[in-house]
Amino acid sequence: MRIVLPTAPRPLGAYSAVSRRAGLVMLSGQLPLERGVLTHVGQVGVDLTVAQGSAAARQAALNVIAHLVELASIGDLIGLLRLDGYVAGGSDFTAQAEVLDGASQLLIDVLGEDVGRHARVALGVGRLPMNAPVELGLSLVIKPRTSTGN
Amino acid sequence: MRIVLPTAPRPLGAYSAVSRRAGLVMLSGQLPLERGVLTHVGQVGVDLTVAQGSAAARQAALNVIAHLVELASIGDLIGLLRLDGYVAGGSDFTAQAEVLDGASQLLIDVLGEDVGRHARVALGVGRLPMNAPVELGLSLVIKPRTSTGN
Amino acid sequence: MRIVLPTAPRPLGAYSAVSRRAGLVMLSGQLPLERGVLTHVGQVGVDLTVAQGSAAARQAALNVIAHLVELASIGDLIGLLRLDGYVAGGSDFTAQAEVLDGASQLLIDVLGEDVGRHARVALGVGRLPMNAPVELGLSLVIKPRTSTGN
Repeated sequence: MRIVLPTAPRPLGAYSAVSRRAGLVMLSGQLPLERGVLTHVGQVGVDLTVAQGSAAARQAALNVIAHLVELASIGDLIGLLRLDGYVAGGSDFTAQAEVLDGASQLLIDVLGEDVGRHARVALGVGRLPMNAPVELGLSLVIKPRTSTGN
Repeated sequence: MRIVLPTAPRPLGAYSAVSRRAGLVMLSGQLPLERGVLTHVGQVGVDLTVAQGSAAARQAALNVIAHLVELASIGDLIGLLRLDGYVAGGSDFTAQAEVLDGASQLLIDVLGEDVGRHARVALGVGRLPMNAPVELGLSLVIKPRTSTGN
Repeated sequence: MRIVLPTAPRPLGAYSAVSRRAGLVMLSGQLPLERGVLTHVGQVGVDLTVAQGSAAARQAALNVIAHLVELASIGDLIGLLRLDGYVAGGSDFTAQAEVLDGASQLLIDVLGEDVGRHARVALGVGRLPMNAPVELGLSLVIKPRTSTGN
Protein backbone atom coordinates (compact mmCIF):
# COMPACT_ATOMS: atom_id res chain seq x y z
CA MET A 1 0.00 0.00 0.00
CA ARG A 2 1.36 3.38 -1.01
CA ILE A 3 0.00 6.36 0.86
CA VAL A 4 1.04 9.99 0.59
CA LEU A 5 0.68 11.48 4.04
CA PRO A 6 -0.57 15.05 4.40
CA THR A 7 1.28 17.49 6.65
CA ALA A 8 -0.13 17.13 10.16
CA PRO A 9 -2.60 20.03 10.53
CA ARG A 10 -1.99 22.77 13.10
CA PRO A 11 -4.57 23.38 15.84
CA LEU A 12 -7.46 25.79 15.19
CA GLY A 13 -7.21 27.37 18.65
CA ALA A 14 -5.49 27.53 22.05
CA TYR A 15 -4.69 23.83 22.34
CA SER A 16 -2.16 21.23 21.22
CA ALA A 17 -2.64 18.85 18.32
CA VAL A 18 -1.40 15.95 20.44
CA SER A 19 -1.17 15.39 24.19
CA ARG A 20 1.19 12.74 25.53
CA ARG A 21 1.34 11.98 29.23
CA ALA A 22 2.74 8.91 30.95
CA GLY A 23 2.30 6.58 27.98
CA LEU A 24 -1.17 7.74 27.09
CA VAL A 25 -1.73 9.81 23.96
CA MET A 26 -4.84 11.73 22.93
CA LEU A 27 -5.20 13.51 19.62
CA SER A 28 -7.20 16.62 19.00
CA GLY A 29 -10.18 16.29 16.70
CA GLN A 30 -9.01 15.66 13.15
CA LEU A 31 -10.91 16.99 10.18
CA PRO A 32 -10.63 15.96 6.50
CA LEU A 33 -8.06 18.67 5.80
CA GLU A 34 -5.51 18.66 2.98
CA ARG A 35 -3.05 21.58 3.04
CA GLY A 36 -5.41 23.54 5.26
CA VAL A 37 -8.50 23.06 3.09
CA LEU A 38 -11.34 20.62 3.70
CA THR A 39 -11.54 17.94 1.00
CA HIS A 40 -15.27 17.63 1.69
CA VAL A 41 -17.70 20.17 3.19
CA GLY A 42 -21.19 19.86 4.61
CA GLN A 43 -23.50 17.21 5.97
CA VAL A 44 -23.49 13.58 4.90
CA GLY A 45 -26.87 12.61 3.50
CA VAL A 46 -27.59 16.23 2.59
CA ASP A 47 -24.57 17.72 0.81
CA LEU A 48 -22.53 14.52 0.50
CA THR A 49 -23.20 10.86 -0.25
CA VAL A 50 -22.21 8.13 2.21
CA ALA A 51 -19.31 7.22 -0.12
CA GLN A 52 -18.10 10.83 -0.04
CA GLY A 53 -18.48 10.86 3.74
CA SER A 54 -16.41 7.71 3.96
CA ALA A 55 -13.71 9.31 1.76
CA ALA A 56 -13.74 12.32 4.10
CA ALA A 57 -13.33 9.99 7.10
CA ARG A 58 -10.36 8.37 5.36
CA GLN A 59 -8.79 11.80 4.77
CA ALA A 60 -9.23 12.71 8.45
CA ALA A 61 -7.60 9.37 9.33
CA LEU A 62 -4.64 10.27 7.09
CA ASN A 63 -4.18 13.33 9.30
CA VAL A 64 -4.35 11.05 12.34
CA ILE A 65 -1.54 8.96 10.86
CA ALA A 66 0.45 12.11 10.02
CA HIS A 67 0.29 13.14 13.68
CA LEU A 68 1.32 9.68 14.88
CA VAL A 69 4.32 9.67 12.52
CA GLU A 70 5.31 13.12 13.79
CA LEU A 71 4.94 11.97 17.41
CA ALA A 72 6.99 8.79 17.38
CA SER A 73 8.19 5.92 15.30
CA ILE A 74 5.33 3.54 14.58
CA GLY A 75 7.26 0.85 16.46
CA ASP A 76 6.82 2.81 19.68
CA LEU A 77 3.04 2.64 19.47
CA ILE A 78 1.62 -0.06 21.72
CA GLY A 79 -1.84 0.23 20.28
CA LEU A 80 -4.90 2.31 19.60
CA LEU A 81 -7.59 2.51 22.25
CA ARG A 82 -10.65 4.24 20.88
CA LEU A 83 -11.66 6.18 17.82
CA ASP A 84 -14.38 8.73 18.51
CA GLY A 85 -16.08 9.40 15.22
CA TYR A 86 -18.45 12.32 14.74
CA VAL A 87 -20.46 12.57 11.54
CA ALA A 88 -22.36 15.71 10.58
CA GLY A 89 -25.62 14.68 8.97
CA GLY A 90 -29.20 15.65 8.44
CA SER A 91 -31.78 15.02 11.13
CA ASP A 92 -32.65 11.59 9.71
CA PHE A 93 -29.11 10.32 8.99
CA THR A 94 -28.24 7.07 10.78
CA ALA A 95 -25.43 5.48 8.64
CA GLN A 96 -22.57 6.83 10.79
CA ALA A 97 -20.96 3.38 11.03
CA GLU A 98 -20.60 3.06 7.25
CA VAL A 99 -19.02 6.53 7.00
CA LEU A 100 -16.53 5.86 9.79
CA ASP A 101 -15.40 2.54 8.35
CA GLY A 102 -13.42 4.67 5.87
CA ALA A 103 -11.29 5.79 8.81
CA SER A 104 -11.19 2.53 10.76
CA GLN A 105 -10.09 0.52 7.75
CA LEU A 106 -7.24 2.90 6.93
CA LEU A 107 -5.94 2.81 10.50
CA ILE A 108 -5.89 -0.99 10.47
CA ASP A 109 -4.34 -1.12 6.96
CA VAL A 110 -1.53 1.29 7.86
CA LEU A 111 -0.79 0.31 11.46
CA GLY A 112 -1.52 -3.40 11.18
CA GLU A 113 -4.14 -5.42 13.01
CA ASP A 114 -2.28 -5.61 16.35
CA VAL A 115 -1.55 -1.90 16.78
CA GLY A 116 -4.38 -0.55 14.66
CA ARG A 117 -7.41 -2.35 16.03
CA HIS A 118 -9.57 -0.07 18.14
CA ALA A 119 -12.87 0.41 19.87
CA ARG A 120 -15.12 3.02 18.35
CA VAL A 121 -17.89 5.39 19.29
CA ALA A 122 -19.95 6.68 16.34
CA LEU A 123 -22.12 9.74 16.73
CA GLY A 124 -24.29 11.85 14.52
CA VAL A 125 -24.06 15.58 15.13
CA GLY A 126 -25.54 18.63 13.45
CA ARG A 127 -22.52 20.73 12.56
CA LEU A 128 -18.77 20.39 13.05
CA PRO A 129 -16.01 23.04 13.09
CA MET A 130 -15.46 24.61 9.64
CA ASN A 131 -18.60 22.76 8.47
CA ALA A 132 -16.59 19.54 8.12
CA PRO A 133 -18.58 16.33 7.50
CA VAL A 134 -16.44 14.21 9.83
CA GLU A 135 -14.29 14.70 12.92
CA LEU A 136 -12.12 12.02 14.53
CA GLY A 137 -10.82 11.83 18.09
CA LEU A 138 -8.29 9.16 19.02
CA SER A 139 -6.68 7.77 22.16
CA LEU A 140 -3.80 5.32 22.18
CA VAL A 141 -1.07 3.82 24.31
CA ILE A 142 2.61 4.41 23.54
CA LYS A 143 5.86 3.27 25.12
CA PRO A 144 6.68 5.77 27.87
CA ARG A 145 9.72 7.95 27.30
CA THR A 146 12.61 6.56 29.28
CA SER A 147 13.97 9.90 30.52
CA THR A 148 11.05 11.52 32.36
CA GLY A 149 8.18 9.08 32.22
CA ASN A 150 6.01 11.89 30.92
CA MET B 1 -30.64 -8.69 42.12
CA ARG B 2 -31.17 -11.15 39.31
CA ILE B 3 -30.16 -9.98 35.85
CA VAL B 4 -30.19 -11.94 32.62
CA LEU B 5 -27.29 -10.67 30.57
CA PRO B 6 -27.68 -10.30 26.81
CA THR B 7 -25.06 -11.71 24.47
CA ALA B 8 -22.39 -9.04 23.98
CA PRO B 9 -23.24 -7.41 20.60
CA ARG B 10 -20.81 -7.68 17.67
CA PRO B 11 -19.39 -4.49 16.14
CA LEU B 12 -21.32 -2.77 13.32
CA GLY B 13 -18.15 -2.08 11.30
CA ALA B 14 -14.35 -2.34 10.98
CA TYR B 15 -13.54 -2.02 14.67
CA SER B 16 -13.38 -4.04 17.88
CA ALA B 17 -16.07 -4.13 20.55
CA VAL B 18 -13.47 -3.69 23.27
CA SER B 19 -9.93 -2.34 23.27
CA ARG B 20 -7.57 -3.26 26.11
CA ARG B 21 -4.09 -1.80 26.29
CA ALA B 22 -1.77 -1.61 29.28
CA GLY B 23 -4.49 -1.78 31.91
CA LEU B 24 -6.79 0.67 30.21
CA VAL B 25 -10.01 -0.52 28.58
CA MET B 26 -12.33 1.36 26.24
CA LEU B 27 -15.61 -0.01 24.96
CA SER B 28 -17.17 0.76 21.65
CA GLY B 29 -20.46 2.61 21.71
CA GLN B 30 -23.18 0.37 23.12
CA LEU B 31 -26.75 0.61 21.90
CA PRO B 32 -29.92 -0.77 23.54
CA LEU B 33 -29.68 -4.00 21.55
CA GLU B 34 -31.20 -7.34 22.52
CA ARG B 35 -30.33 -10.23 20.19
CA GLY B 36 -29.40 -7.79 17.46
CA VAL B 37 -32.60 -5.73 17.62
CA LEU B 38 -33.05 -2.36 19.31
CA THR B 39 -35.42 -2.54 22.27
CA HIS B 40 -36.30 1.13 21.71
CA VAL B 41 -36.06 3.22 18.53
CA GLY B 42 -36.16 6.95 17.88
CA GLN B 43 -35.71 10.19 19.77
CA VAL B 44 -36.46 10.68 23.46
CA GLY B 45 -39.05 13.39 23.92
CA VAL B 46 -40.39 12.79 20.41
CA ASP B 47 -40.88 9.05 19.86
CA LEU B 48 -40.14 7.92 23.42
CA THR B 49 -40.87 9.14 26.95
CA VAL B 50 -38.07 9.87 29.41
CA ALA B 51 -38.95 6.63 31.24
CA GLN B 52 -38.60 4.69 27.98
CA GLY B 53 -35.31 6.46 27.27
CA SER B 54 -34.09 5.47 30.73
CA ALA B 55 -35.08 1.85 30.06
CA ALA B 56 -33.14 2.02 26.78
CA ALA B 57 -30.11 3.37 28.65
CA ARG B 58 -30.39 0.46 31.10
CA GLN B 59 -30.50 -2.02 28.19
CA ALA B 60 -27.37 -0.45 26.65
CA ALA B 61 -25.70 -0.74 30.08
CA LEU B 62 -26.60 -4.46 30.17
CA ASN B 63 -24.58 -4.79 26.96
CA VAL B 64 -21.73 -2.92 28.65
CA ILE B 65 -21.81 -5.48 31.47
CA ALA B 66 -21.96 -8.34 28.96
CA HIS B 67 -18.76 -7.06 27.36
CA LEU B 68 -17.04 -6.66 30.74
CA VAL B 69 -17.96 -10.23 31.72
CA GLU B 70 -16.61 -11.49 28.39
CA LEU B 71 -13.39 -9.50 28.86
CA ALA B 72 -12.39 -10.53 32.35
CA SER B 73 -13.62 -11.68 35.69
CA ILE B 74 -15.29 -8.83 37.52
CA GLY B 75 -12.65 -9.16 40.24
CA ASP B 76 -10.00 -8.02 37.74
CA LEU B 77 -11.72 -4.70 37.19
CA ILE B 78 -10.08 -1.90 39.16
CA GLY B 79 -12.83 0.56 38.39
CA LEU B 80 -14.82 2.52 35.86
CA LEU B 81 -13.49 5.86 34.71
CA ARG B 82 -16.10 7.63 32.62
CA LEU B 83 -19.41 6.88 31.02
CA ASP B 84 -20.04 8.93 27.88
CA GLY B 85 -23.79 9.03 27.39
CA TYR B 86 -25.37 10.23 24.18
CA VAL B 87 -29.11 10.74 24.03
CA ALA B 88 -30.94 11.30 20.74
CA GLY B 89 -33.66 13.84 21.33
CA GLY B 90 -35.68 16.58 19.74
CA SER B 91 -34.24 20.07 19.39
CA ASP B 92 -35.65 21.16 22.76
CA PHE B 93 -34.80 18.06 24.82
CA THR B 94 -32.61 18.75 27.88
CA ALA B 95 -33.34 15.84 30.31
CA GLN B 96 -30.29 13.77 29.26
CA ALA B 97 -29.21 13.29 32.89
CA GLU B 98 -32.48 11.61 33.85
CA VAL B 99 -32.29 9.25 30.86
CA LEU B 100 -28.70 8.26 31.58
CA ASP B 101 -29.35 7.54 35.25
CA GLY B 102 -30.94 4.29 33.98
CA ALA B 103 -27.46 3.24 32.87
CA SER B 104 -25.43 4.70 35.74
CA GLN B 105 -27.62 3.08 38.37
CA LEU B 106 -27.34 -0.37 36.76
CA LEU B 107 -23.55 -0.14 36.57
CA ILE B 108 -23.33 0.74 40.26
CA ASP B 109 -25.89 -1.93 41.26
CA VAL B 110 -24.07 -4.70 39.36
CA LEU B 111 -20.44 -3.74 39.90
CA GLY B 112 -20.77 -2.28 43.38
CA GLU B 113 -20.04 1.24 44.52
CA ASP B 114 -16.25 0.90 44.56
CA VAL B 115 -15.77 -0.50 41.06
CA GLY B 116 -18.93 0.87 39.49
CA ARG B 117 -18.81 4.55 40.41
CA HIS B 118 -17.89 6.70 37.43
CA ALA B 119 -17.68 10.18 36.02
CA ARG B 120 -20.16 10.95 33.27
CA VAL B 121 -20.56 13.19 30.27
CA ALA B 122 -24.16 13.57 29.07
CA LEU B 123 -24.88 14.88 25.61
CA GLY B 124 -27.91 15.47 23.45
CA VAL B 125 -27.47 14.57 19.79
CA GLY B 126 -29.79 14.49 16.83
CA ARG B 127 -29.50 10.94 15.54
CA LEU B 128 -27.53 7.86 16.57
CA PRO B 129 -26.53 4.76 14.57
CA MET B 130 -29.54 2.56 13.69
CA ASN B 131 -31.77 5.38 15.02
CA ALA B 132 -31.07 4.27 18.60
CA PRO B 133 -32.26 6.60 21.39
CA VAL B 134 -29.14 6.10 23.53
CA GLU B 135 -25.48 5.23 23.00
CA LEU B 136 -22.97 4.59 25.79
CA GLY B 137 -19.18 4.81 25.69
CA LEU B 138 -17.14 3.59 28.65
CA SER B 139 -13.54 3.70 29.81
CA LEU B 140 -12.19 1.76 32.79
CA VAL B 141 -9.05 0.51 34.45
CA ILE B 142 -8.30 -3.20 34.74
CA LYS B 143 -5.47 -5.22 36.27
CA PRO B 144 -2.77 -5.54 33.62
CA ARG B 145 -2.20 -9.01 32.21
CA THR B 146 0.86 -10.52 33.83
CA SER B 147 2.33 -12.10 30.70
CA THR B 148 2.70 -9.23 28.24
CA GLY B 149 1.62 -6.09 30.03
CA ASN B 150 -0.65 -5.36 27.10
CA MET C 1 -4.07 36.74 37.73
CA ARG C 2 -6.70 36.75 40.43
CA ILE C 3 -9.50 34.26 40.04
CA VAL C 4 -12.34 33.53 42.43
CA LEU C 5 -13.12 29.86 42.11
CA PRO C 6 -16.73 28.69 42.26
CA THR C 7 -17.68 25.81 44.53
CA ALA C 8 -17.23 22.59 42.57
CA PRO C 9 -20.74 21.66 41.35
CA ARG C 10 -22.42 18.45 42.56
CA PRO C 11 -23.43 15.80 40.01
CA LEU C 12 -26.88 16.02 38.40
CA GLY C 13 -27.48 12.24 38.71
CA ALA C 14 -26.21 8.82 39.78
CA TYR C 15 -22.54 9.42 39.04
CA SER C 16 -19.42 11.00 40.53
CA ALA C 17 -18.09 14.42 39.65
CA VAL C 18 -14.57 13.03 39.34
CA SER C 19 -13.21 9.54 38.75
CA ARG C 20 -9.62 8.76 39.70
CA ARG C 21 -8.11 5.37 38.95
CA ALA C 22 -4.46 4.39 38.76
CA GLY C 23 -3.16 7.86 38.00
CA LEU C 24 -5.79 8.64 35.41
CA VAL C 25 -8.52 11.19 36.16
CA MET C 26 -11.70 11.89 34.23
CA LEU C 27 -14.11 14.67 35.09
CA SER C 28 -17.83 14.60 34.53
CA GLY C 29 -19.22 17.08 32.06
CA GLN C 30 -18.90 20.61 33.44
CA LEU C 31 -21.47 23.26 32.68
CA PRO C 32 -21.19 27.05 33.11
CA LEU C 33 -22.71 26.90 36.59
CA GLU C 34 -22.25 29.46 39.34
CA ARG C 35 -23.83 28.53 42.70
CA GLY C 36 -26.08 26.04 40.94
CA VAL C 37 -27.37 28.44 38.29
CA LEU C 38 -26.21 28.63 34.66
CA THR C 39 -24.46 31.92 33.88
CA HIS C 40 -25.55 31.57 30.25
CA VAL C 41 -28.49 29.63 28.78
CA GLY C 42 -29.35 28.54 25.25
CA GLN C 43 -27.64 28.04 21.93
CA VAL C 44 -24.61 29.98 20.72
CA GLY C 45 -25.42 31.78 17.49
CA VAL C 46 -29.13 31.80 18.34
CA ASP C 47 -29.59 32.95 21.94
CA LEU C 48 -25.98 33.94 22.64
CA THR C 49 -23.13 35.61 20.76
CA VAL C 50 -19.79 33.87 20.24
CA ALA C 51 -18.28 36.16 22.90
CA GLN C 52 -21.00 35.11 25.37
CA GLY C 53 -20.42 31.47 24.44
CA SER C 54 -16.71 31.94 25.10
CA ALA C 55 -17.49 33.47 28.50
CA ALA C 56 -19.70 30.47 29.25
CA ALA C 57 -16.84 28.13 28.27
CA ARG C 58 -14.56 30.04 30.64
CA GLN C 59 -17.10 29.65 33.47
CA ALA C 60 -17.32 25.90 32.83
CA ALA C 61 -13.52 25.79 32.92
CA LEU C 62 -13.57 27.55 36.31
CA ASN C 63 -15.64 24.62 37.54
CA VAL C 64 -13.07 22.25 36.06
CA ILE C 65 -10.37 24.04 38.06
CA ALA C 66 -12.54 23.93 41.20
CA HIS C 67 -12.77 20.14 40.87
CA LEU C 68 -9.02 19.80 40.31
CA VAL C 69 -8.28 21.88 43.42
CA GLU C 70 -10.70 19.74 45.42
CA LEU C 71 -9.08 16.56 44.08
CA ALA C 72 -5.42 17.25 44.75
CA SER C 73 -2.80 19.90 45.09
CA ILE C 74 -1.99 21.37 41.69
CA GLY C 75 1.57 20.14 42.13
CA ASP C 76 0.31 16.55 41.97
CA LEU C 77 -1.10 17.03 38.49
CA ILE C 78 1.19 15.62 35.82
CA GLY C 79 -0.78 17.15 33.01
CA LEU C 80 -4.01 17.47 31.10
CA LEU C 81 -4.73 15.02 28.32
CA ARG C 82 -7.81 16.10 26.40
CA LEU C 83 -10.57 18.64 26.69
CA ASP C 84 -13.81 17.49 25.07
CA GLY C 85 -15.78 20.61 24.28
CA TYR C 86 -19.43 20.50 23.31
CA VAL C 87 -21.12 23.65 22.07
CA ALA C 88 -24.89 23.89 21.67
CA GLY C 89 -25.63 25.89 18.56
CA GLY C 90 -28.07 26.40 15.76
CA SER C 91 -28.02 24.12 12.73
CA ASP C 92 -25.58 26.39 10.85
CA PHE C 93 -23.17 27.19 13.70
CA THR C 94 -19.54 26.23 13.00
CA ALA C 95 -17.43 28.52 15.28
CA GLN C 96 -17.02 25.94 18.07
CA ALA C 97 -13.25 26.47 18.19
CA GLU C 98 -13.59 30.17 19.00
CA VAL C 99 -16.08 29.45 21.79
CA LEU C 100 -13.90 26.78 23.37
CA ASP C 101 -10.78 28.93 23.36
CA GLY C 102 -12.39 30.66 26.36
CA ALA C 103 -11.92 27.41 28.27
CA SER C 104 -8.57 26.34 26.83
CA GLN C 105 -6.96 29.69 27.52
CA LEU C 106 -8.10 29.70 31.17
CA LEU C 107 -6.74 26.18 31.76
CA ILE C 108 -3.35 27.18 30.37
CA ASP C 109 -3.33 30.49 32.27
CA VAL C 110 -4.15 28.86 35.62
CA LEU C 111 -2.23 25.58 35.36
CA GLY C 112 0.72 26.83 33.33
CA GLU C 113 1.82 25.73 29.89
CA ASP C 114 3.44 22.45 31.01
CA VAL C 115 0.53 21.05 33.00
CA GLY C 116 -2.27 22.92 31.27
CA ARG C 117 -1.62 22.24 27.59
CA HIS C 118 -4.08 19.75 26.17
CA ALA C 119 -5.51 18.16 23.07
CA ARG C 120 -9.06 19.13 22.25
CA VAL C 121 -12.10 17.79 20.48
CA ALA C 122 -14.68 20.45 19.55
CA LEU C 123 -18.22 19.44 18.68
CA GLY C 124 -21.44 21.17 17.83
CA VAL C 125 -24.54 19.62 19.37
CA GLY C 126 -28.20 20.57 19.43
CA ARG C 127 -29.01 20.73 23.13
CA LEU C 128 -27.10 20.12 26.34
CA PRO C 129 -28.33 19.25 29.86
CA MET C 130 -30.22 22.15 31.50
CA ASN C 131 -30.08 23.93 28.11
CA ALA C 132 -26.47 24.95 28.77
CA PRO C 133 -24.55 26.47 25.83
CA VAL C 134 -21.30 24.64 26.62
CA GLU C 135 -20.24 21.39 28.30
CA LEU C 136 -16.64 20.37 29.00
CA GLY C 137 -15.21 16.91 29.56
CA LEU C 138 -11.60 16.52 30.72
CA SER C 139 -9.07 13.73 31.16
CA LEU C 140 -5.72 14.16 32.85
CA VAL C 141 -2.84 12.31 34.44
CA ILE C 142 -2.03 12.67 38.13
CA LYS C 143 0.63 11.25 40.41
CA PRO C 144 -0.67 7.90 41.71
CA ARG C 145 -1.51 7.76 45.37
CA THR C 146 1.31 6.07 47.20
CA SER C 147 -0.84 3.95 49.53
CA THR C 148 -3.07 1.94 47.21
CA GLY C 149 -2.06 2.81 43.68
CA ASN C 150 -5.71 3.49 42.92
